[in-house]
Amino acid sequence: MSIASENNSGENDTQMEDVRPVSPEFVSEIVHALENEDREQIDFLLEPLHSADVADVFEQLDDADRKILTAFIGPKMEPDVLSELDASTLDAVLNEMDNADVARVITQMESDDAVHVLEDLDLVDQREIIDALPDEDRIAIEEGLSYPEESAGRLLQRTLVSVPGRWTVGKVIDYFRTDKELPDEFYEIFVVDPMHHPIGTVALNKIIRSGREVKIRDIMDDDPTVVPVEMDQEEVAYLFRQYDLTSMGVVDSSGRLIGMITVDDVVDVIEEEAEEDLMRMAGIRDTDITEGVLEASKNRVIWLIVNLGTAILASAVISFFDATIEQMVALAVLMPIVASMGGNAGTQTMTVTVRAIATRDLTSSNVRRIIFRELLIALLNGAIIAAIIGGLCWVWFNSPALGGVMGIAMVVNIIMAGLAGILVPVTLDKLDIDPALASSIFVTTITDVVGFFAFLGLAAAVLL
Amino acid sequence: MSIASENNSGENDTQMEDVRPVSPEFVSEIVHALENEDREQIDFLLEPLHSADVADVFEQLDDADRKILTAFIGPKMEPDVLSELDASTLDAVLNEMDNADVARVITQMESDDAVHVLEDLDLVDQREIIDALPDEDRIAIEEGLSYPEESAGRLLQRTLVSVPGRWTVGKVIDYFRTDKELPDEFYEIFVVDPMHHPIGTVALNKIIRSGREVKIRDIMDDDPTVVPVEMDQEEVAYLFRQYDLTSMGVVDSSGRLIGMITVDDVVDVIEEEAEEDLMRMAGIRDTDITEGVLEASKNRVIWLIVNLGTAILASAVISFFDATIEQMVALAVLMPIVASMGGNAGTQTMTVTVRAIATRDLTSSNVRRIIFRELLIALLNGAIIAAIIGGLCWVWFNSPALGGVMGIAMVVNIIMAGLAGILVPVTLDKLDIDPALASSIFVTTITDVVGFFAFLGLAAAVLL
Repeated sequence: MSIASENNSGENDTQMEDVRPVSPEFVSEIVHALENEDREQIDFLLEPLHSADVADVFEQLDDADRKILTAFIGPKMEPDVLSELDASTLDAVLNEMDNADVARVITQMESDDAVHVLEDLDLVDQREIIDALPDEDRIAIEEGLSYPEESAGRLLQRTLVSVPGRWTVGKVIDYFRTDKELPDEFYEIFVVDPMHHPIGTVALNKIIRSGREVKIRDIMDDDPTVVPVEMDQEEVAYLFRQYDLTSMGVVDSSGRLIGMITVDDVVDVIEEEAEEDLMRMAGIRDTDITEGVLEASKNRVIWLIVNLGTAILASAVISFFDATIEQMVALAVLMPIVASMGGNAGTQTMTVTVRAIATRDLTSSNVRRIIFRELLIALLNGAIIAAIIGGLCWVWFNSPALGGVMGIAMVVNIIMAGLAGILVPVTLDKLDIDPALASSIFVTTITDVVGFFAFLGLAAAVLL
Repeated sequence: MSIASENNSGENDTQMEDVRPVSPEFVSEIVHALENEDREQIDFLLEPLHSADVADVFEQLDDADRKILTAFIGPKMEPDVLSELDASTLDAVLNEMDNADVARVITQMESDDAVHVLEDLDLVDQREIIDALPDEDRIAIEEGLSYPEESAGRLLQRTLVSVPGRWTVGKVIDYFRTDKELPDEFYEIFVVDPMHHPIGTVALNKIIRSGREVKIRDIMDDDPTVVPVEMDQEEVAYLFRQYDLTSMGVVDSSGRLIGMITVDDVVDVIEEEAEEDLMRMAGIRDTDITEGVLEASKNRVIWLIVNLGTAILASAVISFFDATIEQMVALAVLMPIVASMGGNAGTQTMTVTVRAIATRDLTSSNVRRIIFRELLIALLNGAIIAAIIGGLCWVWFNSPALGGVMGIAMVVNIIMAGLAGILVPVTLDKLDIDPALASSIFVTTITDVVGFFAFLGLAAAVLL
């Protein structure tokens, strides 16, 4: 037994590396062995590792070392190592493996893992590998690839256990003991009618608990969650989470059971979807960390250019008041505070809103209530921040009038930030635009423009 | 069978509500029935729902309606409804239920759910409810509450199946058929030695596949992942994800098996942990959406005040150059562009870094490589943005020198943003400070100060 250990000096993230066998020291040992071409040592180090940890080793190596390692273990690559690799490492490793080796590994995989491994390959390699497969695997994989990306069809494995409802528990157990075509892992069996439509599921623990003579239809859950093959993976993940599922049947357009999705695949989807929101709000793609310099640069600079446009808009507002600033340079000094506070307050509300839309805590049932809540919070926080900065300005520039202008501009800006922070993502969502992707551009533009306009306009009217 | 459906007009988030039985229209019907005190209609509407969906109904109602609903169904509250509620709704519902009703519901729960429901209650209510429980439940729950928050101990359920390795498959099956104390859901059994130390696990499907005479120890996985009770839940979630687990044994300090954690609880943890990072980076708590106005306002304004401090620092840099700005007001017009681009570029790198630290894709094995990568990206994107904005400034203000100053300041600022975006979170992590929580303050301060200093300093030196 291995007890995953941690040292007990407190609670923090860095400790977490202790549960992970692939430590930086371990990677150094691997690199050392690779650079000495010491095959025996490599085997000695990797042999005890779980496939997922071997995949981590691949991900941690630089290009040159990864090539050597792939050359070493390519011919005996474990299927689970490939399916655990992240997209860009997978791509690099597959490119360095013989297509024949890849095809051999693919035949040992469940269909969902095979589709996952093949889907990002370039089409020539994909074709060559698929053509080298036995008919049965080839057909399953081609069908998997025919479903839309990020749909249930891409997650499903075709091997599952389905039985007629009239079977007894004893017959099912005997079938298990003789049939060799069972999935590696499964947690429930499906009950189907003669047309292969799913009519129920039975958890394995229920089968073991029941007597041999009990009919399957009498112990089945006759209202199982079953999804169409084209359903978006985000919705699949929602159903798993909402109903605490471990597996789920997938049906084709005629309602026939064609596969199942298991919770381990959905765990990855849940992680990916939350990460996607985080990344998109910052203007990066969720694949960024694994992209090459040129690709990451290209993807990020687009966002910077869009933001440049909105920053220029804010500059235009300022240039409208250039005579005012010339007369009172303190305004220029204070401008970044206006922009920064509006931006921060807007981002707070926007992040709550984007997340609430994603987790569906924000719906048309409660949107009014939540807008009202955000307005109250903005009013409160606007007043607090206005009092602080207004007072500071009074002291700093020895001008109660400037303090007053700054305070009022701040209240206006933070309220606008609160409103924009909720209305922008809600509106984008209604227009079927991903709020995580586009909200921050609009929110910061609004807070910058309104903030500068309120501050400089008020200053021009009151102070000069 | 219920096939979760969606309409087929395209792929987007709003459609997702179709898989959810608790639609806004449905909530309206509930509200209507509540306000007419129409108990029969409430029962009619709620009866077909899954407990998790009933919990959603509670979450969608406002305070007044939720009170009425709690009064209606409190005495017959389902355990799973309570355990699916979010923290603030749970708190509100529990406060309105009789403690005796709560105690009755608690006795029907697995120990992990009971601990989850009780942990956030105020201590007086908690004590009163716990004291009303039968001894066995009381002891299990008190022990659960004695473990640190967010630890494995809070997630574990005490009911599990453990057998000696010498038992045969037949004996295990017979035991299942007679024992009534089995967990509601389980996917594997634990094999223990006479001291109750776990020595292996057997997946249920393996038991059903094997003949009755086969010894459990011959089919067990003798290297199962087992964790100590005080392990942080984030590490537990990591292990589930890394090794595709469905359940995991938990041991006490003497290595005895005291419970198991199942994947459904971990799915919630994974979601929470990713959400926490997103929220913290924006300066809000992950509980924000469910907090009252005053509490949310208080928690958010702290962040705004900290940011105000950093904005004032940037202002101080500007005020250092007030004579320069007075002579050339165009500088004031362009300043927000400098700040905005530095902030955006810094946030991009910082978000990638924070996430890579959280998912442990960034380790001391590859940190140099990733710093180098970020520098290259910053250099490329800095050059692109500098060329665009430098050219624009030249045209806008008809001054090639101003264009040059802006361009150089932009390159400097974006490179600094890239460096700060990676070095700040990495350093915070080394200091055991959560990088998600504190990075953005430091990064924006650095980009603002460096950006304004480079831009205004260069302008003062070159243009005047």
